[in-house]
Amino acid sequence: MRFIVGTPEPGKPNAIFLVQGDRAFNLTQAHPGIGHDLMRLITDPALLARIRAEGMGQPTLPVTAIQPALPVAHPGKVICLGLNYVDHVKEGGYEIPTYPALFIRTLSSLMPAGAPMIRPACSERLDYEAELMVLIGRGGRHIDEARALDHVFGYTVFNDGSIRDYQRKTHQWTPGKNFDATGAIGPVVVTPDELPPGATGLRIQTRVGAEILQDANTADMMWSVARTIATLSEYTTLEPGDMIAMGTPPGVGHARTPPRWLRPGEVVEVEIEGIGICASPVHDEVRAPLQTAPKTPATAH
Amino acid sequence: MRFIVGTPEPGKPNAIFLVQGDRAFNLTQAHPGIGHDLMRLITDPALLARIRAEGMGQPTLPVTAIQPALPVAHPGKVICLGLNYVDHVKEGGYEIPTYPALFIRTLSSLMPAGAPMIRPACSERLDYEAELMVLIGRGGRHIDEARALDHVFGYTVFNDGSIRDYQRKTHQWTPGKNFDATGAIGPVVVTPDELPPGATGLRIQTRVGAEILQDANTADMMWSVARTIATLSEYTTLEPGDMIAMGTPPGVGHARTPPRWLRPGEVVEVEIEGIGICASPVHDEVRAPLQTAPKTPATAH
Repeated sequence: MRFIVGTPEPGKPNAIFLVQGDRAFNLTQAHPGIGHDLMRLITDPALLARIRAEGMGQPTLPVTAIQPALPVAHPGKVICLGLNYVDHVKEGGYEIPTYPALFIRTLSSLMPAGAPMIRPACSERLDYEAELMVLIGRGGRHIDEARALDHVFGYTVFNDGSIRDYQRKTHQWTPGKNFDATGAIGPVVVTPDELPPGATGLRIQTRVGAEILQDANTADMMWSVARTIATLSEYTTLEPGDMIAMGTPPGVGHARTPPRWLRPGEVVEVEIEGIGICASPVHDEVRAPLQTAPKTPATAH
Repeated sequence: MRFIVGTPEPGKPNAIFLVQGDRAFNLTQAHPGIGHDLMRLITDPALLARIRAEGMGQPTLPVTAIQPALPVAHPGKVICLGLNYVDHVKEGGYEIPTYPALFIRTLSSLMPAGAPMIRPACSERLDYEAELMVLIGRGGRHIDEARALDHVFGYTVFNDGSIRDYQRKTHQWTPGKNFDATGAIGPVVVTPDELPPGATGLRIQTRVGAEILQDANTADMMWSVARTIATLSEYTTLEPGDMIAMGTPPGVGHARTPPRWLRPGEVVEVEIEGIGICASPVHDEVRAPLQTAPKTPATAH
């Protein structure tokens, strides 16, 4: 099954759409209890099975009419692998790791596919990163690699937008990976039965117009989805709705000569074969002046 | 005002208690709309002002009868400063930073004061870190340092429990800082009017029994609370209920010779002058055997 969460009427509550080709069927209208993001379907396998058995009703609108939202409105955590394709490790000047380099993205840094990716006022070094994203279904701790894929609800597309100078201000990447509205997710979530096991062997690309900036295959990931789930669940309880970003292949802007930063007016697209395209128009931050302490009458005199 | 969120009857819903000395008054009983954690009070300054004006009713029970819960059940993000006391930077072998080393803790790694701190099966290197924790009240982006303290709802105590070998598996500290149930918060949240501006000049200690392991003063923080809020809000929108952990002073276990790891049966206490004590009994992880793929009848033959 292929899902998009979003709304054809911006400002109205989101719905879950079941997608086939370029047509979408409003599941939330058909099953009002199903909610406004995927969380209910993720935590209720019986409901998911029923939806699957019923199949798709009469599609009600074209996919293009939906303004996407995040597939899960409040994910418990979003864990990201930093260096998971050998050639990207090399272009960044890092050693081949023996354990994944992990960082966290907070919700305020994320936006749905289609929404603007914001280049902040403080930096021009906005970079793209095409990534496979895993949406956890069944939670767990100490998950064995051999059964890890049973814990996947689905796969989607991620653009791990990064502000490179802030990423390397210290050895910890957190600020450069967490600027407001820089990480784009979606729009399509595909259940595992529609893809190869672990979503391996899929072409993954970043494009701006006709310019192909990343072009690789998910088969080149050093940590597979299954191994990643096993590795992460050694230290943390994975929970339904958690997301795991699987790292990016080579070709990022900061490793190019000269660097290739994203610019306002461009639309950056990440595509993964069999899943879909996550497109983000790049906008400059519109910044109110820094709030400063008001002069009180007492100090103004 | 001093608050504790928790319950005198484990298993029952949490309440907000107003605390004076060793007595507590059940605010949730008196004002049912106030909710079961501090989020409503954080986002409704008028309600907070009314509670303040009313003062404390007849205390209903001793503070010791409350089993603490997290002050905010679902914080949007928990941002932590890694290196914020000069002498702790030196003992870890790091350079004095010109920007704070930032990492994120996810909710699954946190537990309230009083709950067990879990030493995982995979490592003996469980370490303590005494820290001041800031609870954000009013949110914002691009907050000026001169007004930053207006965005603080209150202060509490944090023990940033860390698994040192996993913290340094790669250059990114995420796994060692995010083991399940290793970061202890609370129990008392103190509003800023009861403390020096920015909670500076407060003695901060870690103890195990009579053994004093850290003993410093929040005046030694390189990034003050105000400067930290200004710095973080350059890249992220701070939101009500967000938490900021302000880094630890020297004396951590991994920098001692020989290292001083926490052991099951010990109770580790972090105390900050004027706020309170966050005590955590150390327990070993009770681990179910690794789940492995079941043998199906077909393969068993």
